[in-house]
Amino acid sequence: MQPKPEPEPGNLDLPAALSAIVGDAQVLTGEKEVLPYCRELRDLWHGTPAAVVRPASREEVAAILALANAHGVPIVPQGGNTGLVGAQVPDESGREVVLSLERMKAIRDVDAEGATLVVEAGVILEEIHAAASEAGLFFPLSLGAQGSCRIGGNIATNAGGTGVLAYGNTRELVLGLEVVLADGRIWNGLRRLRKDNTGYDLKQLFIGSEGTLGVITAAALRLFPAPKGRSVAFVAVESPAEALTLFRRFSASAGSGLTGFELMPRIGIEFTLKHLEGARDPLAEPYPWYALVEISSGRSEEEAASIMQATLEAAFEAEELLDAAPAANLSQAADFWRMRHGLSEVQRHEGGSIKHDVSVPVARVPELLERASAAVIERIPGVRPVPFGHLGDGNIHFNFSQPEGAEKAEFLDRWDQVNEIVHAIVTELSGSISAEHGIGRLKRELLKEVKDEVEIDLMRKIKRAFDPNNILSPGRVL
Amino acid sequence: MQPKPEPEPGNLDLPAALSAIVGDAQVLTGEKEVLPYCRELRDLWHGTPAAVVRPASREEVAAILALANAHGVPIVPQGGNTGLVGAQVPDESGREVVLSLERMKAIRDVDAEGATLVVEAGVILEEIHAAASEAGLFFPLSLGAQGSCRIGGNIATNAGGTGVLAYGNTRELVLGLEVVLADGRIWNGLRRLRKDNTGYDLKQLFIGSEGTLGVITAAALRLFPAPKGRSVAFVAVESPAEALTLFRRFSASAGSGLTGFELMPRIGIEFTLKHLEGARDPLAEPYPWYALVEISSGRSEEEAASIMQATLEAAFEAEELLDAAPAANLSQAADFWRMRHGLSEVQRHEGGSIKHDVSVPVARVPELLERASAAVIERIPGVRPVPFGHLGDGNIHFNFSQPEGAEKAEFLDRWDQVNEIVHAIVTELSGSISAEHGIGRLKRELLKEVKDEVEIDLMRKIKRAFDPNNILSPGRVL
Repeated sequence: MQPKPEPEPGNLDLPAALSAIVGDAQVLTGEKEVLPYCRELRDLWHGTPAAVVRPASREEVAAILALANAHGVPIVPQGGNTGLVGAQVPDESGREVVLSLERMKAIRDVDAEGATLVVEAGVILEEIHAAASEAGLFFPLSLGAQGSCRIGGNIATNAGGTGVLAYGNTRELVLGLEVVLADGRIWNGLRRLRKDNTGYDLKQLFIGSEGTLGVITAAALRLFPAPKGRSVAFVAVESPAEALTLFRRFSASAGSGLTGFELMPRIGIEFTLKHLEGARDPLAEPYPWYALVEISSGRSEEEAASIMQATLEAAFEAEELLDAAPAANLSQAADFWRMRHGLSEVQRHEGGSIKHDVSVPVARVPELLERASAAVIERIPGVRPVPFGHLGDGNIHFNFSQPEGAEKAEFLDRWDQVNEIVHAIVTELSGSISAEHGIGRLKRELLKEVKDEVEIDLMRKIKRAFDPNNILSPGRVL
Repeated sequence: MQPKPEPEPGNLDLPAALSAIVGDAQVLTGEKEVLPYCRELRDLWHGTPAAVVRPASREEVAAILALANAHGVPIVPQGGNTGLVGAQVPDESGREVVLSLERMKAIRDVDAEGATLVVEAGVILEEIHAAASEAGLFFPLSLGAQGSCRIGGNIATNAGGTGVLAYGNTRELVLGLEVVLADGRIWNGLRRLRKDNTGYDLKQLFIGSEGTLGVITAAALRLFPAPKGRSVAFVAVESPAEALTLFRRFSASAGSGLTGFELMPRIGIEFTLKHLEGARDPLAEPYPWYALVEISSGRSEEEAASIMQATLEAAFEAEELLDAAPAANLSQAADFWRMRHGLSEVQRHEGGSIKHDVSVPVARVPELLERASAAVIERIPGVRPVPFGHLGDGNIHFNFSQPEGAEKAEFLDRWDQVNEIVHAIVTELSGSISAEHGIGRLKRELLKEVKDEVEIDLMRKIKRAFDPNNILSPGRVL
């Protein structure tokens, strides 16, 4: 859409110029040194950077961007490098500079009275959980990568995870941001207000922009009272439609105390029993579908347990479930969650898996599962749909495992074909082709197909207004 | 900041051109006809429009904006005309066209299963409450003007109200928008997804932009399970600091079941007892400060009552309150709320009142109240501070009633002076000078004083990108 940045003039010695800002030790150019910044988890994306630079302060970030903007040097901000769509990984051009926020890891302030926290972009999510609980409070953003992902990246990608149902996406947890703009100016939007109607809500643009509009250097986050009790149950249901009915019953009885409602198909449980060490089927017999339900109470274990018990009984009487196993204790609850979290991993042992991260209006989830599964099976006989995820958010990780005994490579060659089938149905159901992982480079072309011209045009206008030289993560999102 | 639109060429017969789009009957130009659109509640703002145009569809809105954009005709969108900062009222130039959304009042769709609702911009807030409860659900946005304000205006101003504590501002209740852009193009962003990370979240820009970036014609809103029980109590405390301690106790015990926590000073109660018909002091003796506390339960009246009871007892033992009166029944609960809602109105009977709509981080509220009251009293001996409002959001309606027996006009002449004192302290406490009412024309100049250059510049860049000819609500916000 926009001109690639002009190559920097020959007279710029980039490493030297960067070293002048952050010091020699923080400018990495050696192949070995830069490797960890150039590959991501799934190894779908890798590239070669001009350099990796590791600033320690917003002022250093500002100086780096001012330099890059003046010389048209493309900058790719990177947090914990756990993104799944390639946004944070440099391309093959050898011209992109990876700007790692990993050294900006100060927890600037914890305000227990106001239930807010100010952290720098490089703080690891789990460290924020720890800081919150030290203050007797709770930060609800929770996802698989929480041991290594960094809050700046969580915000830049509007991360989702399992806490969304009760607490919202990362977007809902951010009160304010500090951002370095493409031209090196610093925007101090580190507010901690619940209500502020003074003009456009600028932070919303940077949240979820995947590093294309500015570099987030710090954030003010909302904290919440820590739940005093949790109750988890493993529930068997006939179908996704029945799971949806059950979801509605639970959200009516537990309200925002319903902190988890995950859908899982039988085949996913079988994969888990086969490949996840120590996994045991919580129920005596096999059932077609399962819901993992978690209720939290601000008051006590007893309350959480009694709401769970009462709701399960009512649902059983109403014949909305087939069987249920409430966790007897914390360790069993942890086991239930471990099965859910293992679902993605165990599929590796069943050969190739073609993945989708989609969402539809909650009420349309059963239709999505039925239609997309049938359509893909028709195209690829024997393919094994393994859709699972956050039913309460309408967000399904819609994975397809290869037919048993099929050629893995051959199957994976059909990735785009399968995507096309699933995304067409998702779009028809007014859904999203990227519910929580973002666009990055993986879905950039797709974006133009699913968004209308007007929306793409508005996004481009914003990009041009914020980054006229297109130095920030060029080729990502737009 | 931007050039005022060029006057439309003499060759454009504006009323005729508008009539060609919406029909003669929907283009108002007579002085009497246009009057209701040219004054607002407090009568602080009034003007003379070139015309009032009342489209019935997004296509008509689109045609009007295309015309206006081509000829540089300034357009002022208006909903229920209940705004308090003058954004929706035409100026004195006689050139602005008021675009009233009042005829776009279709409830396009109620999805009880998905707990969403799609409404046109002209639907009155109370009608949305009704539609939600017909579906067995609940729409939490609640404010004094709900009988006449329209949802398009609520969204364009990111309205707050009493539901924010548990459910968030209007922003948090919007899933998607349909917007007509300055050039007449229609953006269909009417999504109903809880999770969607496909590019920039454009709706966030229109929410709270006060009609300066586009005309909202429809919205997809979130609905919630209807609370099954409520418990309300009128609690006496020693000070705002004690009220804050009490607030924390309640938010820990009730979590998101804490649906109301309003702070009121004794003088406000006295005004109410004097001027609000049928008002009675819920407590036997007078106390310096009061909190109106509301707890909602997704399960039962009993649960709400028992949480209220238990928390009040614990607070009493901890000496965090002086006295408390739980409402014995719904009508008493309504009486308690009526006193709170009457607070603004009753001040009229005490002479002039200089008002502020400010917020600070929740923990700083006591400091704000103490310092700002002292500073204004020092400047105007005898002035009577009547600060009240949403303590849990940090949002205080900080009003000052004139000294007894003072000259009303003389007192009101000091409005700016008092504003300056209060806003300086608010800014020092990292607060907001407009927590929920917005900027409009009233606080436009103020905005430049409280925002740094970088933020104002980003806002202007967005305005220019979305409305290059500056035809949308010129002179509002920026």
